[in-house]
Amino acid sequence: MMINVAVVGANGYGGIELVRILARHPQVQLSSLVSRSEAGQKIVDIFPHLRGDVCDEWVYVSPYDADWQAIDVCFFATPHTVAMSQVQSLLEKGIKVIDLSADFRIKDRLLWEKWYATRHTAPEYIEQAVYGLPELNRGAIKTADLIACPGCYPTAIQLGLMPLLRQGLLTDDTIIADAKSGISGAGRSAKVNMLFCERSENFEAYATTGHRHYPEIKQQLEVMRGGQVDIIFTPHLLPTVRGIHATIYAKLRNSETDVQALFESAYTNEPFVSVLPKGHHPQTKSVSATNHVQIATARPPQSDYVTILVVEDNLVKGAAGQAVQCMNLMTGLEEVTGLAQLAGI
Amino acid sequence: MMINVAVVGANGYGGIELVRILARHPQVQLSSLVSRSEAGQKIVDIFPHLRGDVCDEWVYVSPYDADWQAIDVCFFATPHTVAMSQVQSLLEKGIKVIDLSADFRIKDRLLWEKWYATRHTAPEYIEQAVYGLPELNRGAIKTADLIACPGCYPTAIQLGLMPLLRQGLLTDDTIIADAKSGISGAGRSAKVNMLFCERSENFEAYATTGHRHYPEIKQQLEVMRGGQVDIIFTPHLLPTVRGIHATIYAKLRNSETDVQALFESAYTNEPFVSVLPKGHHPQTKSVSATNHVQIATARPPQSDYVTILVVEDNLVKGAAGQAVQCMNLMTGLEEVTGLAQLAGI
Amino acid sequence: MMINVAVVGANGYGGIELVRILARHPQVQLSSLVSRSEAGQKIVDIFPHLRGDVCDEWVYVSPYDADWQAIDVCFFATPHTVAMSQVQSLLEKGIKVIDLSADFRIKDRLLWEKWYATRHTAPEYIEQAVYGLPELNRGAIKTADLIACPGCYPTAIQLGLMPLLRQGLLTDDTIIADAKSGISGAGRSAKVNMLFCERSENFEAYATTGHRHYPEIKQQLEVMRGGQVDIIFTPHLLPTVRGIHATIYAKLRNSETDVQALFESAYTNEPFVSVLPKGHHPQTKSVSATNHVQIATARPPQSDYVTILVVEDNLVKGAAGQAVQCMNLMTGLEEVTGLAQLAGI
Amino acid sequence: MMINVAVVGANGYGGIELVRILARHPQVQLSSLVSRSEAGQKIVDIFPHLRGDVCDEWVYVSPYDADWQAIDVCFFATPHTVAMSQVQSLLEKGIKVIDLSADFRIKDRLLWEKWYATRHTAPEYIEQAVYGLPELNRGAIKTADLIACPGCYPTAIQLGLMPLLRQGLLTDDTIIADAKSGISGAGRSAKVNMLFCERSENFEAYATTGHRHYPEIKQQLEVMRGGQVDIIFTPHLLPTVRGIHATIYAKLRNSETDVQALFESAYTNEPFVSVLPKGHHPQTKSVSATNHVQIATARPPQSDYVTILVVEDNLVKGAAGQAVQCMNLMTGLEEVTGLAQLAGI
Repeated sequence: MMINVAVVGANGYGGIELVRILARHPQVQLSSLVSRSEAGQKIVDIFPHLRGDVCDEWVYVSPYDADWQAIDVCFFATPHTVAMSQVQSLLEKGIKVIDLSADFRIKDRLLWEKWYATRHTAPEYIEQAVYGLPELNRGAIKTADLIACPGCYPTAIQLGLMPLLRQGLLTDDTIIADAKSGISGAGRSAKVNMLFCERSENFEAYATTGHRHYPEIKQQLEVMRGGQVDIIFTPHLLPTVRGIHATIYAKLRNSETDVQALFESAYTNEPFVSVLPKGHHPQTKSVSATNHVQIATARPPQSDYVTILVVEDNLVKGAAGQAVQCMNLMTGLEEVTGLAQLAGI
Repeated sequence: MMINVAVVGANGYGGIELVRILARHPQVQLSSLVSRSEAGQKIVDIFPHLRGDVCDEWVYVSPYDADWQAIDVCFFATPHTVAMSQVQSLLEKGIKVIDLSADFRIKDRLLWEKWYATRHTAPEYIEQAVYGLPELNRGAIKTADLIACPGCYPTAIQLGLMPLLRQGLLTDDTIIADAKSGISGAGRSAKVNMLFCERSENFEAYATTGHRHYPEIKQQLEVMRGGQVDIIFTPHLLPTVRGIHATIYAKLRNSETDVQALFESAYTNEPFVSVLPKGHHPQTKSVSATNHVQIATARPPQSDYVTILVVEDNLVKGAAGQAVQCMNLMTGLEEVTGLAQLAGI
Repeated sequence: MMINVAVVGANGYGGIELVRILARHPQVQLSSLVSRSEAGQKIVDIFPHLRGDVCDEWVYVSPYDADWQAIDVCFFATPHTVAMSQVQSLLEKGIKVIDLSADFRIKDRLLWEKWYATRHTAPEYIEQAVYGLPELNRGAIKTADLIACPGCYPTAIQLGLMPLLRQGLLTDDTIIADAKSGISGAGRSAKVNMLFCERSENFEAYATTGHRHYPEIKQQLEVMRGGQVDIIFTPHLLPTVRGIHATIYAKLRNSETDVQALFESAYTNEPFVSVLPKGHHPQTKSVSATNHVQIATARPPQSDYVTILVVEDNLVKGAAGQAVQCMNLMTGLEEVTGLAQLAGI
Repeated sequence: MMINVAVVGANGYGGIELVRILARHPQVQLSSLVSRSEAGQKIVDIFPHLRGDVCDEWVYVSPYDADWQAIDVCFFATPHTVAMSQVQSLLEKGIKVIDLSADFRIKDRLLWEKWYATRHTAPEYIEQAVYGLPELNRGAIKTADLIACPGCYPTAIQLGLMPLLRQGLLTDDTIIADAKSGISGAGRSAKVNMLFCERSENFEAYATTGHRHYPEIKQQLEVMRGGQVDIIFTPHLLPTVRGIHATIYAKLRNSETDVQALFESAYTNEPFVSVLPKGHHPQTKSVSATNHVQIATARPPQSDYVTILVVEDNLVKGAAGQAVQCMNLMTGLEEVTGLAQLAGI
């Protein structure tokens, strides 16, 4: 079986990472790389790192020129509001939709409209959309037609808190999620503050009074706990291309809880989540360009808190890889197909 | 007036930054650059960035060859235990001692011995040593003969919490200090895990179960509050040479507190501390290689917490610059003398 | 004596480096920071690294609002064609003009118009303009009213070849100048190919079929030799903010020439040029943010060629610092005034 | 067919990249990872980027504990002199040997001994060893038992000059090869001058009076030309982990030569060499962690020279990947097997 795939927004960092992964996926035929702004251009003229391979002759097409009849699965690696404008038409054609943008992540439409400051134009699909975090939602993903892929920060923070929240092991005290991201999270658009000379040898926080991933994180943690979760989420910008590191501080109901054993048990069967041995600290580079997540836990001195450290690649497990993991589940393939790449040194 | 200065340990990153600053200080004569391991070597053969200037002919001397009779002030930029072994001899010669190491920072000798895992050999000087944070201790520094310069992390965290703690505006809840440091904090010694290839495009936490700066931070915050402070301190390693960014989370007694006004007022006369306008985020690069600190505060959504962001240069305000600031105070000079350097782009 | 200075284009990397240097220059009053696009904005809101100092209240002015009557010296840190449009008006007011752009560097007007693809609108000033390389032209600079500051690459390459060309020690064979520059050379404008994610962990050549500094380099080397010079100049982009490294290959007439002695002698009295001891290699970081140049020479095996290695900071000795060095000469100050900053680690 | 493989020196950067590639090679069984210094340690405790996969339980073995009877192919990713001490024993067991070190690259034993400053202890195998550059030597590699894999610099420089030298299109003038390498080329050993703080934001040349790859480059270019080649080779250190960029300057006999067409034709069937369209410049990042090489040529203004730009990954095409390419040829597999990885953004 070959799956015919379209990628809309294949000219951003997330989109081109999808192309990189799908170009090597043994059961995918990349049929259409859709980009309004780059239509007619060769992919390798914009992304020379794909030259010398199958991609050499691929050309971006406008959405009007894609052969939608042939498509089985359509990925949206676009800014918000694009997927919502196309979802009805695609689903009616029988095309499965995997949206890497924020359009269907938040179940409360008014909350979405407040944080994204625009009207939601396909509210009837919000309920139907399945939140695409396989470690949380594997069963529902398998039968879904419309996937809302999690944001990069929410993926890391959910995986870091899921074992504790599901088992009710935390107090009601505010959880702190201090997160750090590589710069590719800001996308491939020309902004002065993302120039090499502005970011190299530099580090700063941003959106400290409210980031769009905050309501998504809060919603999902509350699903896990089955009740209210107070959380502070602070994103920062690392001088790296890739990677997310979340440092999470949460207070244990019972200071004797064996957090290490809990995490090892919770993730023992997960193909993409590794719990590190006690005393180890995960490094963002260890999962660079892969779909792997590494987690460690630690107990700070004189405290009932646990510190949880999570690393992921923001463009792979935080975007393109997770989307392919969902596609594998939706199409009955092995969940890990096409996602075997190991990080280099 | 010219002050005759010796720098012991002038071959590490902190020590050579002292040399850089003191070489341009208008009232300092750098008399002796002491290094056991490099004695006899030209400084510019090891640190070529100082070539082409006054330093061209300077040579490291062993402690035995330094002309101690001529020295007014001696800086120790050495690993812990070196300063404590020399302090009595120097003070008895009438030399003022400014120790950048940890030897005299912690007032509780047993606590020091626990965290540093060795015996303190000059305990009679612990009480006499003045903690060298001018923004906290300006008066005492002016009349001191022995200064214990603060650690790099403790400087940032204290400046970030001082206005709130002194005025009793925080609850007793645990304070979280999530701190990130450039790699020069690890010193100039050959370690595989500090190689360029290990640290570039990488980020990780370390010492999550207890870092030596933890008891120092706790001690100082308790001085400020006049009571117990619970704090979790997590250091991380940024892929930068310089800089510290502390992200501090603390719960307000009264959510209506005007934190911005409080900080602006607290630091209005401080020559090296800037409070940023509301909505700005400090960047580590803005204070690179300078003695400046920049602080911002923010209120996360749906929360009684305040987030405090502090940046400093770990080697200057976190080490060499602060030590010179202390020297200026101790010798009756203008506090800012020789510390005027601005960061570049 | 205080010199009243205006900087036009004080919002680019070169311009703001001029501001950094001039803000600390003991005999300069920075009267007007001119920027059309940023007029009315505070400088520290755009360049937070200057916050906490004299610059805190400075505001960009439009060229119409500057108080030109008060100005003694006007720097242009603008794209080409701006200085040429203002030079007559300023010189007639008695203002000395130091142009960091390319407008007056090339003596052959038609050649300039070919490489810059536009008409020269002030050709009558080309002859009058003095090429602002103090090591070459010190005498003429002292009495000049209009300075054409050299490009960053030409500065490094000229200093690397001057001792050999002036003494006629090279054959007529083609000289190769393989040069590498930090990214700040590309300026502070939003371009996708200068984003952190495009340049980090990356290196490439550019303009291999002809860069605008080529005719300037050729012109100046021919002045030095007093005859034709064939040269290939290839620029590359380093993943660094700052720095230029030129690797120059030139064939000796006489393989016995003592090149090391020649260079040491040629630069012995130059305050900003250091010749390294035999066997040393200059590092770009050693001169970061300073006005220093470091040069080494080497003899490759089995060859009559000499390899010359030159490092400079592209924004200081390659732009802002050299311009201030010229200003010092033009105004009768010590040549090194305000240019004493040492590099950090 | 499964090939049983041993990697000696699997604890260096080159060795662990071999492990990364071979762990995914569909027809390789990684039987023994040999390291004297790390024997008994888990690989993932030293290289956490391999965690979460097949490698999780792999342990380094000492050479005494490896099961040599089971091995078909043995790679040496060791310093020079190790492979030469084992080659006889292994070949006699029928094991094919692929040496990534310098032991068998130079055909002139005395020349080798001069540059490596030690005696060659297996000179009888020098002649038998086949130089493992498939684009040059494909036929001989297929039937070889002992491969001397090329150095990283020599690979780039040979591929950049082969089409011109083989066809006799260059003059006898000295060729200049100005080459730049990522820092992983210096290996994974603790050296102060390879620390992050020493190399970040830095660039320098090294070994300008003679690098060990010089005689290898000269030997191979002379094989291609069938006559003497004068070449200057200057290596430099980029502030990147990976990548080699060679900028090569060579004089054409006939300035009318269509160099672009020549290169396109020469490499049209090579699976790992891409010739870029006219006007493009190769970027080191485009081939990061892959076995691909990208080449461009350009004609500088007013010159008979051609400039050739070559990029490769120093650890893959310059070491581990090329070794696997040779193994594929030696064992009758498809040449590209296991080498399909694409670079990320």
